[in-house]
Amino acid sequence: MSASLVEAKRVFDSAPFIASLGCHLDTLGSGVCHSHIVLAEKHQQQDGYVHAGVQATLADHTAGTAAVTLIEEGQRVLTAEFKINLLRAATGELLICRSSVLKPGRMLIIAESEIYTKQVGSADDCSLVLVAKATVTLAVTNK
Amino acid sequence: MSASLVEAKRVFDSAPFIASLGCHLDTLGSGVCHSHIVLAEKHQQQDGYVHAGVQATLADHTAGTAAVTLIEEGQRVLTAEFKINLLRAATGELLICRSSVLKPGRMLIIAESEIYTKQVGSADDCSLVLVAKATVTLAVTNK
Amino acid sequence: MSASLVEAKRVFDSAPFIASLGCHLDTLGSGVCHSHIVLAEKHQQQDGYVHAGVQATLADHTAGTAAVTLIEEGQRVLTAEFKINLLRAATGELLICRSSVLKPGRMLIIAESEIYTKQVGSADDCSLVLVAKATVTLAVTNK
Amino acid sequence: MSASLVEAKRVFDSAPFIASLGCHLDTLGSGVCHSHIVLAEKHQQQDGYVHAGVQATLADHTAGTAAVTLIEEGQRVLTAEFKINLLRAATGELLICRSSVLKPGRMLIIAESEIYTKQVGSADDCSLVLVAKATVTLAVTNK
Repeated sequence: MSASLVEAKRVFDSAPFIASLGCHLDTLGSGVCHSHIVLAEKHQQQDGYVHAGVQATLADHTAGTAAVTLIEEGQRVLTAEFKINLLRAATGELLICRSSVLKPGRMLIIAESEIYTKQVGSADDCSLVLVAKATVTLAVTNK
Repeated sequence: MSASLVEAKRVFDSAPFIASLGCHLDTLGSGVCHSHIVLAEKHQQQDGYVHAGVQATLADHTAGTAAVTLIEEGQRVLTAEFKINLLRAATGELLICRSSVLKPGRMLIIAESEIYTKQVGSADDCSLVLVAKATVTLAVTNK
Repeated sequence: MSASLVEAKRVFDSAPFIASLGCHLDTLGSGVCHSHIVLAEKHQQQDGYVHAGVQATLADHTAGTAAVTLIEEGQRVLTAEFKINLLRAATGELLICRSSVLKPGRMLIIAESEIYTKQVGSADDCSLVLVAKATVTLAVTNK
Repeated sequence: MSASLVEAKRVFDSAPFIASLGCHLDTLGSGVCHSHIVLAEKHQQQDGYVHAGVQATLADHTAGTAAVTLIEEGQRVLTAEFKINLLRAATGELLICRSSVLKPGRMLIIAESEIYTKQVGSADDCSLVLVAKATVTLAVTNK
């Protein structure tokens, strides 16, 4: 694993809020990060759906980690802004996020995150339901 | 307290994710909601700042509650989309959110949320630092 | 051509602002619309790049037309909100937009638009440069 | 008029697309810019309302000009992204934009734009109708 992927894994896992939500890192590549949460009652809003804040958190953090795979040693990324569309009321057993960098850059990195729900028993991607999509702007700064 | 404010208070407090984050409702009025979180390590990202997901969650949920004060019995709101700008790396003891409805509507309600950090000891508003601003689009549907 | 595609073509072409910008409709399908502008000096901002407003207009209008292909007779769409990331300073001879619906709906339709620049002489897609990406929320209403 | 205001005025007025739309600069201050368009048929979409692209262009350009009042000599701003909510179908004789900087910065400047319509005959602000609100992220670069 390259140094930048090691650093990206460290960033993903070392955020206390992410650990407290139960976010897990699944896949890391150059400009790519996949993650998931095993959904529980604590992730719900008032009507039993997955809270928009849970989806936003996973979309933001996974996008940020995808960006970290592209930066240099001594740099870090901070979210400058993001926008998320909640496409459907989300329910299910797993919340899955797939983030990839749309535009790398020295100052700004733009990434997109797609959020899916999935039933645990289903083996393939056919059962994925797209529930949200986010665009994230990350600022690259020196540590 | 009017029926719509009672319902708004119920919505704010009955979301398990909001309770798990430690979000507290402070003020409710017609089209207005204020809230706060007492910050702890669990709200942080990898560098010790308040995670963007925490700020987004508070901005979304408080905006949604402000919208609930304006809907009719038998209706509910769901976040259709939101956008948040993280203006500064956020640290402090309290995270405060002030949401108000920019445009009411039968189908869509648009609200804005301002997120501030504050030191606990400070008595007045002068010590508030604006750390994020969000625009939230809420869809009104029948229960 | 089906009735909904005829209506979509009418909507695209009958907007005076779109005609004044020189926007042309290229492709229409169910939930899909492609368009372009032949770039001239009048589309520029102060540094000679394509103005963000030109890119936003093409992204919005093409997304809206993609949405119109999915609505019923007697309905129309209005943009509720959109967000656009300008990924690169845009220059070139053609501005091309490809929009597709991410999520259809009776009340809200979410579409995405990708904006490219292209040199006129180039025959294939290899020369396309992605310069902007937008997410557009369209409200469906009765005429 | 200070050098930065002179430069901001030059930026506002020297964009060919802005001139072709008939955008006029009204007020300039530190971090503030107001502008307007006298509305004509050419600014309309297919139903006779002001096109979202016209509102977005005025919101973006006026916000950018507000940002230019805060940068140093030899720098310029480019729009990194913006988001606009179209709050009401817009009609009227004047389209007015009021932009102000929410957060200055060396790398990124965040500004907000409010778009109003107004009847020409009305003398005061009471007749202003808020039709759109935008948040604009501007990247500061060296010329």
